[in-house]
Amino acid sequence: MADEVPFQFLHNEVIQYIYKSADSGDTEHGGDISTLENMGCRVGQGLVERLTKDTARFKDELDIMKFVCKDFWTCVFKKQIDNLRTNHQGIYVLQDNKFRLLSQLSAGKQYLEHAPKYLAFSCGLVRGALSNLGVKSIVTAEVSVMPACKFQIMIQKM
Amino acid sequence: MADEVPFQFLHNEVIQYIYKSADSGDTEHGGDISTLENMGCRVGQGLVERLTKDTARFKDELDIMKFVCKDFWTCVFKKQIDNLRTNHQGIYVLQDNKFRLLSQLSAGKQYLEHAPKYLAFSCGLVRGALSNLGVKSIVTAEVSVMPACKFQIMIQKM
Repeated sequence: MADEVPFQFLHNEVIQYIYKSADSGDTEHGGDISTLENMGCRVGQGLVERLTKDTARFKDELDIMKFVCKDFWTCVFKKQIDNLRTNHQGIYVLQDNKFRLLSQLSAGKQYLEHAPKYLAFSCGLVRGALSNLGVKSIVTAEVSVMPACKFQIMIQKM
Repeated sequence: MADEVPFQFLHNEVIQYIYKSADSGDTEHGGDISTLENMGCRVGQGLVERLTKDTARFKDELDIMKFVCKDFWTCVFKKQIDNLRTNHQGIYVLQDNKFRLLSQLSAGKQYLEHAPKYLAFSCGLVRGALSNLGVKSIVTAEVSVMPACKFQIMIQKM
């Protein structure tokens, strides 16, 4: 039994609940991607506090990214990011070839339109984690073939 | 880093979101204990399907309860139930001396009134798990000293 399954199932319930609220016209809290993104952000902030409790200071931005790709990703998704790339000008691309929160969806193109709501929480997760490490960013996600997924991080210079 | 922490943090966000919806007057989906309980129920049903995929048939009701106390509880909360009691007439009491979803709350009596919303999801979790194992039940929870917690299961004869 994979350890991340209770988290996955709860995540699915959250998506369904939030989108149901949206359908019923509760615009104040409802349904949009940003609700999920903000939830993810707060969870990311909390997790990073726990995870870095006993670690040494990070050397630089790249060092922080490596931490997100390894320790942070493993904590939440029980695997590491498969590929990290950067243009050395503030853009990082994190590729997960088998992203856990998409692995329950069929791999065809049929459900591709539903991918954004399954990714919003995780975009927030990364943004929250980085923000508590002093890096302000915009995080977006992109899927071409499920369950592979690319997260793009644009660093916002302060 | 404890494996159950992402789940815990997400669970906290869900509670906050649902109770915020309730405050804003969204009575249709909002805020009550039963929303959380139903979410838990669906997660419990899903989990039990995964967990029992390769297990042998259960002998009897007590056998099912032992499975919930050990395998199921460990999967979600990374520990077993500490004590299982029954009156052999359809009532079971599962005691967790350090219930994970309460362990972030202060142990005093101060937050005791908030306990029910931190327990509703888990009551549903147990009910859902049992229902997919063919046992219809009503599950309630009780806290006297945090973070210890007792779940009472009343079997509904069909």
